[in-house]
Amino acid sequence: MSLHIVLYQPEIPANTGNIARTCAATNTHLHLIRPLGFSTDDKMLKRAGLDYWHSVNITYYDSIDEFYEAIQDGTVYYIETFGTKTYSEFDYSNSDEEIYFMFGKETTGIPREVIHNPEEQCLRIPQSDHVRSMNLSNTAAIVIFEALRQQGFKGLQ
Amino acid sequence: MSLHIVLYQPEIPANTGNIARTCAATNTHLHLIRPLGFSTDDKMLKRAGLDYWHSVNITYYDSIDEFYEAIQDGTVYYIETFGTKTYSEFDYSNSDEEIYFMFGKETTGIPREVIHNPEEQCLRIPQSDHVRSMNLSNTAAIVIFEALRQQGFKGLQ
Repeated sequence: MSLHIVLYQPEIPANTGNIARTCAATNTHLHLIRPLGFSTDDKMLKRAGLDYWHSVNITYYDSIDEFYEAIQDGTVYYIETFGTKTYSEFDYSNSDEEIYFMFGKETTGIPREVIHNPEEQCLRIPQSDHVRSMNLSNTAAIVIFEALRQQGFKGLQ
Repeated sequence: MSLHIVLYQPEIPANTGNIARTCAATNTHLHLIRPLGFSTDDKMLKRAGLDYWHSVNITYYDSIDEFYEAIQDGTVYYIETFGTKTYSEFDYSNSDEEIYFMFGKETTGIPREVIHNPEEQCLRIPQSDHVRSMNLSNTAAIVIFEALRQQGFKGLQ
């Protein structure tokens, strides 16, 4: 397994549920960094992702340090509005590499102190100035499918 | 404006709200074919998209025939699990062309009789066999951003 989605303290259960569904659809590993803004047996989460939750490889962490200690190799990309490079400019084509896409809280994003290498690993999704940001589950789907496209949708039908 | 999202009888207000937000973020025109499964002043819709609804160019139609009569030029693509070609195999790079991406109901998709040219214009999003489908707003985001990527994210920041 080479693609990973990391949610840093997600707040809204429907978003995490939809992301879990995308992970199930793409064999992507999901990493959740606590505290979560909901219980994983929360009715809303079940409603958004119940059918798929058991199909997803999920790992929970009590802190960001625990996450960084657990992952050994690979590259962590941070999706943030202050990223300077567009998400599709990066090369995700090596499917042997472990690639982590980290997304922050819906309200406040990823704290800067959590980001190891902002110049090289922060990426942004181009958008108009009409909105502050897009829905979290939509941004996750856009980025993961760009990586899958570059890898030729290997293993998918 | 050259990119369009067409929702055929959408049922779930949060999905349409998230799609409206993506349309606002990408200057995409939104077309809604009635009946809708909700009122557009429905509380849920406002909750999912209120901040963005006024930023979106939305056209409503009472039937699929009315939609086809209204659009003169351009290509309609249908996103369906029975599509045979992958969404990223198509060429969306001509930003002078009017490109319509049509999505069906969450529960039943697009009826075959609505589709004019299934061989050439049905496209699918590759996925594992663990899920029946992905969330509607996620599939819309994936396809619209592939078109934007091919067009060099023109007009976005």
